[in-house]
Amino acid sequence: MEVLAVLNLGDFAQVFSKMGMFPVFDLAYYIVSILYLKYEPGSVEVSRRSPVASWLCAMLYCFGSYILADIMLGSSPIDYFQYNSHILLASAVWYLLFYCPLNLFYKCVAFLPIKLVLVALKEVVRTRKIAAGVHHAHHAYHHGFFIMVFVGYVKGSGVALISNFEQLLRGVWRPDTNEILNMSFTTKASLYGAILFTLQEAHWLPVSKSTLILVFTLFMATCKVVMTARHSHGSPFALIESWVCHLLFGSPLGGSEEDHHHPPASVPSSPLKTKEELSEGARKRKVKKAE
Amino acid sequence: MEVLAVLNLGDFAQVFSKMGMFPVFDLAYYIVSILYLKYEPGSVEVSRRSPVASWLCAMLYCFGSYILADIMLGSSPIDYFQYNSHILLASAVWYLLFYCPLNLFYKCVAFLPIKLVLVALKEVVRTRKIAAGVHHAHHAYHHGFFIMVFVGYVKGSGVALISNFEQLLRGVWRPDTNEILNMSFTTKASLYGAILFTLQEAHWLPVSKSTLILVFTLFMATCKVVMTARHSHGSPFALIESWVCHLLFGSPLGGSEEDHHHPPASVPSSPLKTKEELSEGARKRKVKKAE
Amino acid sequence: MEVLAVLNLGDFAQVFSKMGMFPVFDLAYYIVSILYLKYEPGSVEVSRRSPVASWLCAMLYCFGSYILADIMLGSSPIDYFQYNSHILLASAVWYLLFYCPLNLFYKCVAFLPIKLVLVALKEVVRTRKIAAGVHHAHHAYHHGFFIMVFVGYVKGSGVALISNFEQLLRGVWRPDTNEILNMSFTTKASLYGAILFTLQEAHWLPVSKSTLILVFTLFMATCKVVMTARHSHGSPFALIESWVCHLLFGSPLGGSEEDHHHPPASVPSSPLKTKEELSEGARKRKVKKAE
Repeated sequence: MEVLAVLNLGDFAQVFSKMGMFPVFDLAYYIVSILYLKYEPGSVEVSRRSPVASWLCAMLYCFGSYILADIMLGSSPIDYFQYNSHILLASAVWYLLFYCPLNLFYKCVAFLPIKLVLVALKEVVRTRKIAAGVHHAHHAYHHGFFIMVFVGYVKGSGVALISNFEQLLRGVWRPDTNEILNMSFTTKASLYGAILFTLQEAHWLPVSKSTLILVFTLFMATCKVVMTARHSHGSPFALIESWVCHLLFGSPLGGSEEDHHHPPASVPSSPLKTKEELSEGARKRKVKKAE
Repeated sequence: MEVLAVLNLGDFAQVFSKMGMFPVFDLAYYIVSILYLKYEPGSVEVSRRSPVASWLCAMLYCFGSYILADIMLGSSPIDYFQYNSHILLASAVWYLLFYCPLNLFYKCVAFLPIKLVLVALKEVVRTRKIAAGVHHAHHAYHHGFFIMVFVGYVKGSGVALISNFEQLLRGVWRPDTNEILNMSFTTKASLYGAILFTLQEAHWLPVSKSTLILVFTLFMATCKVVMTARHSHGSPFALIESWVCHLLFGSPLGGSEEDHHHPPASVPSSPLKTKEELSEGARKRKVKKAE
Repeated sequence: MEVLAVLNLGDFAQVFSKMGMFPVFDLAYYIVSILYLKYEPGSVEVSRRSPVASWLCAMLYCFGSYILADIMLGSSPIDYFQYNSHILLASAVWYLLFYCPLNLFYKCVAFLPIKLVLVALKEVVRTRKIAAGVHHAHHAYHHGFFIMVFVGYVKGSGVALISNFEQLLRGVWRPDTNEILNMSFTTKASLYGAILFTLQEAHWLPVSKSTLILVFTLFMATCKVVMTARHSHGSPFALIESWVCHLLFGSPLGGSEEDHHHPPASVPSSPLKTKEELSEGARKRKVKKAE
């Protein structure tokens, strides 16, 4: 019975890992990504002033992971833009989210139950991207373990890693923080996921790839759905990280991400809130404003 | 008679599209480009303090289109620098424009009738670059229509698209504006041209490439010569764009480019003038100072 | 006797130019590079707050030359990261320098006699990198002399050329200066070295490559050891450069690098000290603070 259960789970994991992402899961990815772009302060004004800049930002949010991974591996950064159907679908989502009359589309997708489903579907795509990125890098560099982690990391984090430059495209410049200095939950999770998938690819983790994809997807989807439902930024890694960083790196206990009582000398205006919290506050104000 | 006229025009378009750009047209391109660099506030001081930085900026102005297109297509960004004669010619223009005794070379090329001829010749090169860029991208990605438009766009716009970083090289940093957020006439025209050439390459525009090159060159050259002669920034696209953007994107009527009565919240010091107008004002002051 | 001496010198130069850099010389390179990172204001705080950002900065300091050269030649920027042993060695140095209990490792390597030896060994690596970069570029572009100089230049200068962006990773943004606008001694020397090696590769300099490597290494090592021992920034090029720039480029006499009495209009806060001098002041304060 247990063996049967395991076989079924193994089969399920196999099927799950081979499932096509386009169009349903990719659509969810585009909707949630461009929704986060809409929450950014000033992005709606930019969409009125300069639709081209707004569209480019939306494309960075949707395809930033592919762009970065291609840059890392020395390919054409806009290679993914050969998939016209994907670009057209993302463009349609961008247009509906920013320009739909009465903001109807936004109100639909921002409705919490629907949003939670979309967030869960997005995490399926994220995990798949990390796995694919590590695999692609392994194919190019059989023993390049650092390269595999880098590529998996950028595939998972996407535009967040180049947020400074994406904001610059919208005329915003905040050099005092960036996604590596102050990692959000998804960026950290992408890093850990990239490490796990690299260990699996190098056969140091005794688990099949499809099982790892399934488990990691469930973990990410659960965390993100809970965090979105509770509007919280509490990372599940916080406690472990706090202790590990304190032991290995002498970081102050009590969370490096949310506690900046001792700002470094070179960052005069130390953010007391992380970029996520600043966005969240702006997001709540925008939600009220958009409705 | 009409058929003869058409045949002659067709032949003329063919001959025109195959005409070599080097050295005459390329020389005009380098002169006008580095002239615009010289108009930038602070560039003359940089040329005294750091000739290397000044030369690099001049090379970005002259070859930025090739650099960006190569980056887009995943090639070496400095691939064009293998053409030593082109680099030497551009370097000679840079040296003469910045360091010629009594500023003689500058006074020659800035003399309006000569400048207008050079501006017209530059547009011949720009159009040819857009067409070549779209063709090159088509060769790499047969159905990558977005890629063709991107590459044509960057070939036409050149350094303008990376103006923030070119300025950074000179120690200037203006993050509140960029060429995509506030498009100048040539950048917009490059975008429209790239779209037209892509439609032609995909056989959706029932016109031969040589005819399109001829027509687009005539249009660009005429517009730029008139705008340069009148020191104006009035774009011929302004009226149509205004209406299209109002209908599709809800932009305020009356020009998104030159009217910033309602600055976006994220851009505290909203430029009431576009970068072109700011440069033009500085340009006039510099013209007086240089004479 | 003289012929024997020459033969021996030629043999010695041959052996010297073929000597393996890993692990001894590379180790010295990593130690000195990450030591300079540690001197940067705020880098120690960053190492406590965000070890990932600190590690990435250390990797940029150690491998920036390879990353830039790969970007210049259109390869994968993280290609060098396939050499796991090199990355692990550099990571070990980073960890020991930033997190060793009682700062023991730092105190060892910062002890002046040891530091001078490491600085000399680093210059062996730098010269070898410039030569290898020029040779690699020659292999890709047989007559691309500008390309050879570029690649040699970035191989020699390394992270200094992207210092603005490396600082951005640490949350620091200083757009008014950069390594091309205000070249430090090593950056200038890398440029001159790249030109010399290009002339040698093109057979315009009648000297063997191994001899040039030996001579340039001796020159660089001597200069850097003397400058480090005397805590000075006086460049040996200063006098010649001053006159050449005055003749060719109309620069003011008396050193363009250290004299900024007439700041350019576009750089409102003109640095009266070069970046090196600012770092040196901070370095001395940090040395006191670290002990």
